[in-house]
Amino acid sequence: MYVHTPTPSQQDQQARQAKQFKAPELLRSAFFISDGTAITAETLGRSLLSQFGNVKFDVKIIPYVDAPELAHEAVKRINETHRLSGLKPLVFDTIVSDEIRTIINGADATNLDIYEGLITRIANEIGETPDPHAGMAHGQVDSDDYKARIDAVHFALDNDDGARTNHYDGADIILVGLSRSGKTPTSLYLALQFGIRAANYPLTEDDLDSSNLPKVLQPYRHKLFGLTIDTERLVRIRQERKAGSRYASLAQCQEEQRAIQAIYTAQKIPNLNVSEMSVEEIATRILQITGLARRIG
Amino acid sequence: MYVHTPTPSQQDQQARQAKQFKAPELLRSAFFISDGTAITAETLGRSLLSQFGNVKFDVKIIPYVDAPELAHEAVKRINETHRLSGLKPLVFDTIVSDEIRTIINGADATNLDIYEGLITRIANEIGETPDPHAGMAHGQVDSDDYKARIDAVHFALDNDDGARTNHYDGADIILVGLSRSGKTPTSLYLALQFGIRAANYPLTEDDLDSSNLPKVLQPYRHKLFGLTIDTERLVRIRQERKAGSRYASLAQCQEEQRAIQAIYTAQKIPNLNVSEMSVEEIATRILQITGLARRIG
Repeated sequence: MYVHTPTPSQQDQQARQAKQFKAPELLRSAFFISDGTAITAETLGRSLLSQFGNVKFDVKIIPYVDAPELAHEAVKRINETHRLSGLKPLVFDTIVSDEIRTIINGADATNLDIYEGLITRIANEIGETPDPHAGMAHGQVDSDDYKARIDAVHFALDNDDGARTNHYDGADIILVGLSRSGKTPTSLYLALQFGIRAANYPLTEDDLDSSNLPKVLQPYRHKLFGLTIDTERLVRIRQERKAGSRYASLAQCQEEQRAIQAIYTAQKIPNLNVSEMSVEEIATRILQITGLARRIG
Repeated sequence: MYVHTPTPSQQDQQARQAKQFKAPELLRSAFFISDGTAITAETLGRSLLSQFGNVKFDVKIIPYVDAPELAHEAVKRINETHRLSGLKPLVFDTIVSDEIRTIINGADATNLDIYEGLITRIANEIGETPDPHAGMAHGQVDSDDYKARIDAVHFALDNDDGARTNHYDGADIILVGLSRSGKTPTSLYLALQFGIRAANYPLTEDDLDSSNLPKVLQPYRHKLFGLTIDTERLVRIRQERKAGSRYASLAQCQEEQRAIQAIYTAQKIPNLNVSEMSVEEIATRILQITGLARRIG
């Protein structure tokens, strides 16, 4: 395999990460280990660790542990971490092969073997033997899901930020909101995660003069969904972008907020305050509120 | 709450979904239930179901079950599904509250309670009481992670498809490859999931004349990463885009493949055949091969 020399920007990042983890006290290590991408192990593990909001963990991700020698290497890393820190690492793993799981479970750690028992219970209930390879096509480069996803990503790119307004017939949803209210990342997440074709259109000063919709949006009122954000957060985000500008002033933001709420009310546009939400939550709440169906998954 | 009337395109989607699920035989239902987005329950549940590749499941996702009355509603839906199909549903849930989990566990189903026991085992090992609210800021609209993510998304958008080449100093990585090899979705996934600033540049006929790099890429050889794809898949994907064109012909694709491999070899550019991979796998493999550190998570 090609041996990669870290680039300057990677060295920066590694230094940043090293600094981040070099806290004065020793941190508890958590390993997320899988025979695949480790996204499932990581998603679940982080969700469990977030239940201990006051504790900081030193997280290590080991994907693609799909051979016994790789499992033995992982065990060495876990045991070494235990030895150096004196703290028993937490090991979250989602590994299908019994042989490999047994090796991982032999590490000197608190082993949180996620799949343990679950696959067997499902097999018993549905009366089928596990056959992981039968379903592998899902999501691959030329599968239908992949195509739907890529089409949705390109749709979101082409219809981002009001760049083009003549493709709204093909949109599943059109996000509207003030500048910097989270429309672009939400559109892309809807595309990547759910294959949904989301356009987005920023309502700017010109559009906020009256409670009418901009002409280009009028035929699509039923597809509109509004994102809102608390005024003080909006000011902070805009200040970071253009400090001291009228655009980022409290008065301007307050006026835009008042105007956009008037539009949402007059036009009966469903809307959501996303101030306390991650991109994932914004996207899943939109599906829940609108009833919009996914195109993939 | 605003009651949303399905739009024509949503009705299409619902009809499509209804058709998809109206198989002649009754499908086993699987519920993914959570007090949050349900992304964790869904990721884990789908991963477990994929171990039974030959079985089709009717998947239902119920997010934001964060009150007893919502849990009772979910139980009603589960029991009704059992009654109508005669098959015991599989219920995957990630719910923190004991009260709500107990209600869900009372459903007439095979209950795969993911968090059961795990939180307690972690609490015992680290000697802390769970406090889910302490860590809530993570990922929210004005957190550092959110900013890193949004900056990376805008970076990927601005530097997509070779659109702009004067910002490569700020890139963490520059993906290269033939047209339609998966660069754009990978760049966006790296941004959204890991906060990594990924540009992408398509190597087109003009660039493939020699084994030299295009001038704009020469100063950034150390940041380049190549995506490759099997020739027959590339032909198929291009045929869908421009059927019958020279661009989509086997001869043209073969010639471009030969030329790009020559460049990768001559320039020592690490590269990956992504033909069998999902976007998630492409992104995690790239991190593994390059050692590139995430900016979030």
